[in-house]
Amino acid sequence: MGCVSDVLSSTVAQVQPLDAAAVAAAEAAQAGLVKPAGALGVLESLSAQLAGIAGACPPPVPAKPAVGVFAGDHGVLAQGVTPWPSDITFVMCNVFQAGGAAINVLSRAAGAEVTVVDMGVAGPFAEGSGPGATLVSKKVRPGTSDLAKGPAMTREEAIQALESGIAIADQLIDGGADLLVTGDMGIGNTTPSAALIAALTATAADVVTGRGTGIDDDMLAHKTSIVAAAVERIAEGADGIDVLSEVGGFEHAGIAGFVLGAAARRVPVVLDGVIAGSAALVAQAIAPEAISYCIAGHRSFEPGHRIALEQLGLRPLLELDLRLGEGTGAVLAAPIVQAAARVLNEMATLESVMAGGQ
Amino acid sequence: MGCVSDVLSSTVAQVQPLDAAAVAAAEAAQAGLVKPAGALGVLESLSAQLAGIAGACPPPVPAKPAVGVFAGDHGVLAQGVTPWPSDITFVMCNVFQAGGAAINVLSRAAGAEVTVVDMGVAGPFAEGSGPGATLVSKKVRPGTSDLAKGPAMTREEAIQALESGIAIADQLIDGGADLLVTGDMGIGNTTPSAALIAALTATAADVVTGRGTGIDDDMLAHKTSIVAAAVERIAEGADGIDVLSEVGGFEHAGIAGFVLGAAARRVPVVLDGVIAGSAALVAQAIAPEAISYCIAGHRSFEPGHRIALEQLGLRPLLELDLRLGEGTGAVLAAPIVQAAARVLNEMATLESVMAGGQ
Repeated sequence: MGCVSDVLSSTVAQVQPLDAAAVAAAEAAQAGLVKPAGALGVLESLSAQLAGIAGACPPPVPAKPAVGVFAGDHGVLAQGVTPWPSDITFVMCNVFQAGGAAINVLSRAAGAEVTVVDMGVAGPFAEGSGPGATLVSKKVRPGTSDLAKGPAMTREEAIQALESGIAIADQLIDGGADLLVTGDMGIGNTTPSAALIAALTATAADVVTGRGTGIDDDMLAHKTSIVAAAVERIAEGADGIDVLSEVGGFEHAGIAGFVLGAAARRVPVVLDGVIAGSAALVAQAIAPEAISYCIAGHRSFEPGHRIALEQLGLRPLLELDLRLGEGTGAVLAAPIVQAAARVLNEMATLESVMAGGQ
Repeated sequence: MGCVSDVLSSTVAQVQPLDAAAVAAAEAAQAGLVKPAGALGVLESLSAQLAGIAGACPPPVPAKPAVGVFAGDHGVLAQGVTPWPSDITFVMCNVFQAGGAAINVLSRAAGAEVTVVDMGVAGPFAEGSGPGATLVSKKVRPGTSDLAKGPAMTREEAIQALESGIAIADQLIDGGADLLVTGDMGIGNTTPSAALIAALTATAADVVTGRGTGIDDDMLAHKTSIVAAAVERIAEGADGIDVLSEVGGFEHAGIAGFVLGAAARRVPVVLDGVIAGSAALVAQAIAPEAISYCIAGHRSFEPGHRIALEQLGLRPLLELDLRLGEGTGAVLAAPIVQAAARVLNEMATLESVMAGGQ
């Protein structure tokens, strides 16, 4: 990488591969449990990943999931890429704090705490705890610049936002969280997501650009042309931070940092839909091994998500047609992650059953 | 229906359609929650189904899931349709009681109790509670007759087994269960499942017969020919109980009764994979409305499951490549069912947010 700060570079240096011995031990253990080999499907590979992340077999069962909802506004809204007004980002962050949003409900169901991170929302927040979430300010500025006209943010701002994401991961983990969950809020944020995916997977804009929370054919064509033109500006040899600066969003940067921070601390992180998928591509460009710590929670409707997941090498646990963001698809998958870990901790072995030990 | 007993016919008479007003109220409520219309995908339709089942909007959030693992042995094992010995059915039921099986682990994770029902296991059980499950004896006899040579059971035995399934549903609901979950154990039970699906969906045996927990090409061809020949014997105009008698299993009958019992009591029931899918087809043949109370938990690898789900009109919540049975795929889906109900109970409305009620 080119110019990066100390915090970011030391975090990247801490991202190590999964513990191969623990992965192998988990695979061997699965083969010895009281069931036909492979009969638990995805739960088996997930349990091995969790063992590799923890560096222990069996891995600890995640007991304290924590959702980080990264929020930001987008200058590209000036181009008319969504029918929704930018104000909604601010309004929804207040709903998150009050506890009435979908992410609040699904997080309570999963026993997960919610932290809303103001990465760059246009409205002003007071930090603090509400009944639904704690709000933390890491505001870079009140919304990105219009990516249709030039870079969405400077390289320095991108690094600042990445480091804020790392800081949030550290803060949640220091507070006892053992399973991080990504969430997002940002009206218009499927436009930078599509641009990040197009740029980081070398895919045409019309393949990765979708309808977000609901736009018509004309608006989709317009959105696609904006994505294509923005990606066109990215220089040959640009690194992940350059791409993020040119076409990303502050919440994408925050989530990318959150993923890097989780990986550096060897904590699994469940990704939500297309926003998280595009942010994970940024994390992958910065530190490829970070993706070993990621679990895809839910497959988004957005066409770019499939492309992103292919490059990340991840298969989503759920496919329930959610198209809300907030972290809803990821936190719904948290019980499956916990269940996978429990299998390795609690199932009897064939050997013990055959010996009559049950 | 032809000759059926009082218990079965009164149960069938109690199976009523979903409450259309509650379904409509749930759909209207979803449209007014603080999210774009439809953005919670499958959770929205599931919440409306739960409202229709309960006859109330919002529906109560299921708090006490209960898994019924119906177990039986199969005379068709004499034909060599699986490499596994029949003894495993008995051994696994003991593992369930001891608490070391996958279904025990996943049920603990979901806060669900497990009841193992001996519908017709070859070995002898004592009824009673173990650390992992309560075992209840509803043994018809120690295994079905060989369906390759004639009817698997008599019509009277089929009715007895259906009524046992109804009794188990009643017993669990009387004990406070508000979400039933189907499970199965029975070495060789994908053979009767394939035959039930072929007969009840009018599909060719080679389309619905699969490899179960793992068989080679020769064994698959042999299994398919046995399924085809058995289905061939079924008379034109046979009812669901006739089909069950000719080619089913005691655990299939138990699960079909369990579904009917849940529907009669207006309690939702989560179906596991192909065994439950084939049993639900029997329930559908007896009382079509019963399927409105069913939720498909997990899509099985078995080819017949897709065919069964199409006829049932159900879309599985999960697709995680499990091929174990026991109820594992269904109980993994229980938290999603609970989450869907919570959405209607706990999310704020757009109106309240716009009024500044946050």
